[in-house]
Amino acid sequence: MQKTALIMAGGKGERFWPKSRQSLPKQFLSLTDDGKTMLQLTVERILPLVKMEDIFIATNRAYRGLVQSQLPDLPEENILCEPQGKNTAPCIGLGAVYMAKKYGDAIMLTLPSDHLIKYNSIFLDTLDEACRVAAENHNLVTLGITPDEPETGYGYIKFDMDRRLRAAYAVERFVEKPDLATAKSYLASEQYLWNSGMFVWKISTILHNLEKYLPDIYAGLCRIGESIGTENEQAVLEREFAAFKSESIDYGVMEKAKDIYILTGSFGWDDVGSWLAVGRIKKSNEFDNVIDGNVVTVDTQNCIIQGADKLIAAVGLENMIVVDTADALLICEKQRAGEIKKVLENLRVCNKTEYL
Amino acid sequence: MQKTALIMAGGKGERFWPKSRQSLPKQFLSLTDDGKTMLQLTVERILPLVKMEDIFIATNRAYRGLVQSQLPDLPEENILCEPQGKNTAPCIGLGAVYMAKKYGDAIMLTLPSDHLIKYNSIFLDTLDEACRVAAENHNLVTLGITPDEPETGYGYIKFDMDRRLRAAYAVERFVEKPDLATAKSYLASEQYLWNSGMFVWKISTILHNLEKYLPDIYAGLCRIGESIGTENEQAVLEREFAAFKSESIDYGVMEKAKDIYILTGSFGWDDVGSWLAVGRIKKSNEFDNVIDGNVVTVDTQNCIIQGADKLIAAVGLENMIVVDTADALLICEKQRAGEIKKVLENLRVCNKTEYL
Repeated sequence: MQKTALIMAGGKGERFWPKSRQSLPKQFLSLTDDGKTMLQLTVERILPLVKMEDIFIATNRAYRGLVQSQLPDLPEENILCEPQGKNTAPCIGLGAVYMAKKYGDAIMLTLPSDHLIKYNSIFLDTLDEACRVAAENHNLVTLGITPDEPETGYGYIKFDMDRRLRAAYAVERFVEKPDLATAKSYLASEQYLWNSGMFVWKISTILHNLEKYLPDIYAGLCRIGESIGTENEQAVLEREFAAFKSESIDYGVMEKAKDIYILTGSFGWDDVGSWLAVGRIKKSNEFDNVIDGNVVTVDTQNCIIQGADKLIAAVGLENMIVVDTADALLICEKQRAGEIKKVLENLRVCNKTEYL
Repeated sequence: MQKTALIMAGGKGERFWPKSRQSLPKQFLSLTDDGKTMLQLTVERILPLVKMEDIFIATNRAYRGLVQSQLPDLPEENILCEPQGKNTAPCIGLGAVYMAKKYGDAIMLTLPSDHLIKYNSIFLDTLDEACRVAAENHNLVTLGITPDEPETGYGYIKFDMDRRLRAAYAVERFVEKPDLATAKSYLASEQYLWNSGMFVWKISTILHNLEKYLPDIYAGLCRIGESIGTENEQAVLEREFAAFKSESIDYGVMEKAKDIYILTGSFGWDDVGSWLAVGRIKKSNEFDNVIDGNVVTVDTQNCIIQGADKLIAAVGLENMIVVDTADALLICEKQRAGEIKKVLENLRVCNKTEYL
């Protein structure tokens, strides 16, 4: 069956501030040593499975130029611009109606644009198997990550090892981010995987599920679908998106749907959730420092220092994150990486929005 | 008796890097909340005692422009430029011969340009008394600071409380920087004061002592003195300075001289020896942070953050020094403030001399 991919690249992550900004979210940053952006890596990764002309990027209208410049080989009409972010359900639905128009039906890989994967060949093999499972009946297929710690920042998926379809397990339920005790019990039970936000389904399957569980959004999507190629296309898109409620595919569909299967991912997944991830991803030196730019260190260890031309001299630093950009500098204790959002709140309160 | 002052402003301190540079040493920086530079404060402080026209600034030739722009009211001919730094003995000797030419004899205050004083009125009162002691015979007078800790970075002066002249005590001896145990014994004995590097003497007295203890330098100084106002002035200065050995007034004269008296200074002296001093000098906020510039802090305390226009966001910092300039950024644990020189060594080794 024809394979297509929808890559979701509309996010506005704040966790890589000050490198990421409202005008340059994480998926458009290069956070790896190869200099490629997260979006470029995501596209490159699936090219053995999906042709470039069959890859669609859903993003915010504001990022169209970024997508074009980072993916010059992508057909321009494959950039689907959301007039405003309404979470993943409308985003995926938008992709589905545009793909339905072009392909009728096809397998639709649905992927975030800001994760990293170490073992691309295993990833592709897993995706390939996911495509086979998704091609049967109206199966919804997702990739689950085997947890290595009781992370409270992810959703979890309970699976039933006794009900299988090919290499996939049947999903019992999707659960939202748990508290620590619950997360620990999940890991102890060995029946839960992390929700990676990566899905494989037929276009017809996801549209069918949207119709069943999010009928209002589905109706709007149908009107958008009918307008494609007409002079009203833009106006309809605008109107329908404004009316959509903000809804995640997990809460809106996956938590309610039937016939979900999960494939376990052992392909070295990293959601690159904060600057700490850069410490895992990039090469570190003999003092466990991950350093880019013009940097001099004295008795400094286990730090992430990301600069550019300006000289950065670090003396006696330990477990710190230093990120220097043209107009903003972040110095943050590693343990406090999650508190970067407090800086952004502070900037909003002080009306220093130029730094957001 | 006529009072003059020689302010020594040729130093090349590295301890305030990256704000201080070879091209902009500490004495030309503003490190206080009033925005005045150390040199400006030094001059302003003694104006009630010495007229501007009787104040001389000895500095390196490279800093003539800085002195002129920071002290626009100073007569240009009162800037004495050393062709090269040869420590304090040639510097003071140079001042003495120029002053001898102009005044014959006079009281000559000899002061560093990079110390701070909290109680200017007490300081002036002490200086005034020092002038009286210096006016008698060939007395060399110095100001000693009562130590509040066994500092190993200063020279010490042993005094004899039983031999007095007016408010001054007789000096028994000058001693070089001690080790910690020795410094502790000095404090315990209550017979040692810190050497502040501030002196008061007659021009004739210091020249007399230079002749006695540093005859080679004295001979060169005499040749410089004879050339003043002639067309050879610059050439002689150049030649003689090149020939001078580098010699401190403490080692070259004070450790050997007789008739030295010391006045104890209780005027709130601070030699502003490192960025830590800025934490003492400048106003701190409720979290004990001393902050200048465009700074956002989250859970940050007891830090010195000196920036400018660029936004600096500090998250979870404690006991840190952050100094941002146009081309260089320092991040340093407070306890490591003394290791800034290692950064500069590193820059020299890497031939990044543009940052020195």
